Amino acid sequence: MRKVLYAGTFDPITNGHMDMIERASKLCDVLLIGVMENKGKKPFFTSAERKNIIERSAAHLSNIEVITFDGLLADFVNVNQIEAVVRGLRATMDFEYELQMAHMNARLYNKDVETIFMMTSPQYSFVSSSIVKEVFSFNGDIEGLVPNAALEELKRKMKNQNEGGL
Amino acid sequence: MRKVLYAGTFDPITNGHMDMIERASKLCDVLLIGVMENKGKKPFFTSAERKNIIERSAAHLSNIEVITFDGLLADFVNVNQIEAVVRGLRATMDFEYELQMAHMNARLYNKDVETIFMMTSPQYSFVSSSIVKEVFSFNGDIEGLVPNAALEELKRKMKNQNEGGL
Amino acid sequence: MRKVLYAGTFDPITNGHMDMIERASKLCDVLLIGVMENKGKKPFFTSAERKNIIERSAAHLSNIEVITFDGLLADFVNVNQIEAVVRGLRATMDFEYELQMAHMNARLYNKDVETIFMMTSPQYSFVSSSIVKEVFSFNGDIEGLVPNAALEELKRKMKNQNEGGL
Amino acid sequence: MRKVLYAGTFDPITNGHMDMIERASKLCDVLLIGVMENKGKKPFFTSAERKNIIERSAAHLSNIEVITFDGLLADFVNVNQIEAVVRGLRATMDFEYELQMAHMNARLYNKDVETIFMMTSPQYSFVSSSIVKEVFSFNGDIEGLVPNAALEELKRKMKNQNEGGL
Amino acid sequence: MRKVLYAGTFDPITNGHMDMIERASKLCDVLLIGVMENKGKKPFFTSAERKNIIERSAAHLSNIEVITFDGLLADFVNVNQIEAVVRGLRATMDFEYELQMAHMNARLYNKDVETIFMMTSPQYSFVSSSIVKEVFSFNGDIEGLVPNAALEELKRKMKNQNEGGL
Amino acid sequence: MRKVLYAGTFDPITNGHMDMIERASKLCDVLLIGVMENKGKKPFFTSAERKNIIERSAAHLSNIEVITFDGLLADFVNVNQIEAVVRGLRATMDFEYELQMAHMNARLYNKDVETIFMMTSPQYSFVSSSIVKEVFSFNGDIEGLVPNAALEELKRKMKNQNEGGL
Repeated sequence: MRKVLYAGTFDPITNGHMDMIERASKLCDVLLIGVMENKGKKPFFTSAERKNIIERSAAHLSNIEVITFDGLLADFVNVNQIEAVVRGLRATMDFEYELQMAHMNARLYNKDVETIFMMTSPQYSFVSSSIVKEVFSFNGDIEGLVPNAALEELKRKMKNQNEGGL
Repeated sequence: MRKVLYAGTFDPITNGHMDMIERASKLCDVLLIGVMENKGKKPFFTSAERKNIIERSAAHLSNIEVITFDGLLADFVNVNQIEAVVRGLRATMDFEYELQMAHMNARLYNKDVETIFMMTSPQYSFVSSSIVKEVFSFNGDIEGLVPNAALEELKRKMKNQNEGGL
Repeated sequence: MRKVLYAGTFDPITNGHMDMIERASKLCDVLLIGVMENKGKKPFFTSAERKNIIERSAAHLSNIEVITFDGLLADFVNVNQIEAVVRGLRATMDFEYELQMAHMNARLYNKDVETIFMMTSPQYSFVSSSIVKEVFSFNGDIEGLVPNAALEELKRKMKNQNEGGL
Repeated sequence: MRKVLYAGTFDPITNGHMDMIERASKLCDVLLIGVMENKGKKPFFTSAERKNIIERSAAHLSNIEVITFDGLLADFVNVNQIEAVVRGLRATMDFEYELQMAHMNARLYNKDVETIFMMTSPQYSFVSSSIVKEVFSFNGDIEGLVPNAALEELKRKMKNQNEGGL
Repeated sequence: MRKVLYAGTFDPITNGHMDMIERASKLCDVLLIGVMENKGKKPFFTSAERKNIIERSAAHLSNIEVITFDGLLADFVNVNQIEAVVRGLRATMDFEYELQMAHMNARLYNKDVETIFMMTSPQYSFVSSSIVKEVFSFNGDIEGLVPNAALEELKRKMKNQNEGGL
Repeated sequence: MRKVLYAGTFDPITNGHMDMIERASKLCDVLLIGVMENKGKKPFFTSAERKNIIERSAAHLSNIEVITFDGLLADFVNVNQIEAVVRGLRATMDFEYELQMAHMNARLYNKDVETIFMMTSPQYSFVSSSIVKEVFSFNGDIEGLVPNAALEELKRKMKNQNEGGL
């Protein structure tokens, strides 16, 4: 595969996401990492911050490119000649949602764009951005669950908020 | 991806399998279709018959190769420099089994061999080799559920059996 | 069965719902289609608009009646001598929720009111009112996923909103 | 609905099945209870014994008829002008299997034959013919899990087997 | 086990929760019932009211203690020398969420703190605090689904709200 | 808890089972490990061999006792004054089966005997006795999936079988 997309909100990226990125990047020439704005969900980090965290965390990978985008995933896929969209599966709940989205997107994508899935490694099966943020907000230990850059930015931003900054 | 494996018993191949083969063949240079002997399960067709049915059904695809093999899937994968193994997902039951196998195989495969999944198209979500054989054994209509070559061979073999042949 | 209820928010009705209505209407003398106000969820269409879309979409069915109602489903069922409530099942997630609701409603319904389920046809298994609205809001193609009346009203209402109307 | 079929192996019928029969019989003019021979599975009771147990257990219901049949369910349905086939759902595992069968049967049934589902009452959600037989074979208490006629026949047949009869 | 925690929002406690408390209290010297403040979810009852309802409902149990707490569950567990945290499982959806939380908490808890699960009794498998409140808000019958103290407080608080009190 | 039972076929015991045993042994005074004969399933190891492997693998635990038994689990539980039966949960499929068995056993156990569950640690979520035996039979690597004693006995028994011994 030439050009593959891995899209998400990544608020922030976790080591489960990083595991997917490292594995998917070996299967294609270029892995686009698409940071969705997701304004409706009021993310903790801006999309620029999330993009920056990913770029620092994936600096050791030579064939990835991080971009931000808004709007319909299918439009982005079709305009950018994406060959396949890769998704991670952790549990049955993921599976059902992803099954629904894959069938919907099969209608919206250009002919021949494929959705492919990889199973999240067992040690990350319980990790999600939201559970990481919840634990961190109570000063719980998230060492090893997110890349260093994400941990640094969580600390910096949380400290700023507590001091009245942003 | 250069060399991808799609393995199964294919006893016989269904249109759900064919849908997977057509979609997967576009994502790689060569798609190996691995027919597992599976002697323990006493298949209806010999592995040679199953290979033949697939070759006739996939004659329109230029980058596939059908082979039969016995033994551990992981050994075949490692010896033949397979880059990824592709699997179809139909339902939650599939997912749970595939999740278990993918984690086990991650231990057995050479480093960097990946298992990737694609969702079966909705119109084939209820089709399996065993349900097709069961319906056919009662003279039920399976038109459109298997490729023509599979239908022909089912008719031929069932007729031979009833006449005391084979 | 004489009088059966198919209830929902129908914001808007999809072709998955229409498939259910056509199949359920054959099993009973009268199929009541109950449009729940659902003010808490802030629907896109008013209940009057939703009722109108359904009436236009189901004009070819002679034994249906579309009504709107608020309050507890069980009260409506009990007061209107409903014999059975019909529900669609698409996936495991639906099943778990419906199982919980069916057991709760068995307590609330008059004795002998039954909840019956039908499986959504595979081609509509990924369709829901919310995914349809999300795709449409990004100008994605929803042709074939909703009846014509729903598509027209989505276009009209979206246009009005963008022009500052409504 | 005029003529509805509830089919199964019923080896033997349980109180979970009886709950379904009582509820389904209220929704139609005639409820056919179809005892499938199922020779492949080597049932504990003959189909005649199973039919007899059901007839004794459902003697209080006036609109049921118990029959035995072999072959493809769809053939029986089509030949006997069945309007709907009713199935019980206990758990997610049931759901996935039933979803697959319902979609397959929708192809095999005459146009307009419908599969409808009802949720097993919570107190019977863990009851199955095979778990009942397993517990009984170890002299475990199954009082309240099967109708009296089934309990009597289990005792009689088990006694005969132990005495070398049958 | 000496000291076990059963934590939840209990807004209000249901008979499903009471069933868990009665069964769990037999397995340990002291069962702590931890009422989580959960300000983010805007509970119907204050945590003091919820604590009071539980104390009245569990007055017949001699080895329980009801407390309220805020913050990270793991911090509470670690500081209070809890030996095990007990959780109820009703359905597959519960299971998946609990699996994720149990793996996350295994990281956060002191070494040797264990999460243990018990299956909710079938007759309460469809009961949850939110479904109880929804049914009650429409004047539906919830007799037998919550303890008397919860029913009284629901009536009192609902009446106060309607009269402009509270 | 004083006396807890962890029962299974253990053909052979895996590191997933060992993880359960180590965690459960901390929650009670005595952990009985019950090796079920399971003659119907034709185990690879005799029950005496399976007991021996467990005893060698759990020699570092002071409060466990390994016994073999046949017949109904509930009879063993009731006769031996077991306070609770502990079970491991790996995935949704496990959950559904265990839910059914727990409800059935609640009927068969003495009053106050409880079934409690613990989640298998993520790194063992894909390990089962049968997958281990299948991989081993093809000379696949199972290092780290079973205790050393199990690995030794698998090698010894497999060698004996190939040499014509048993």
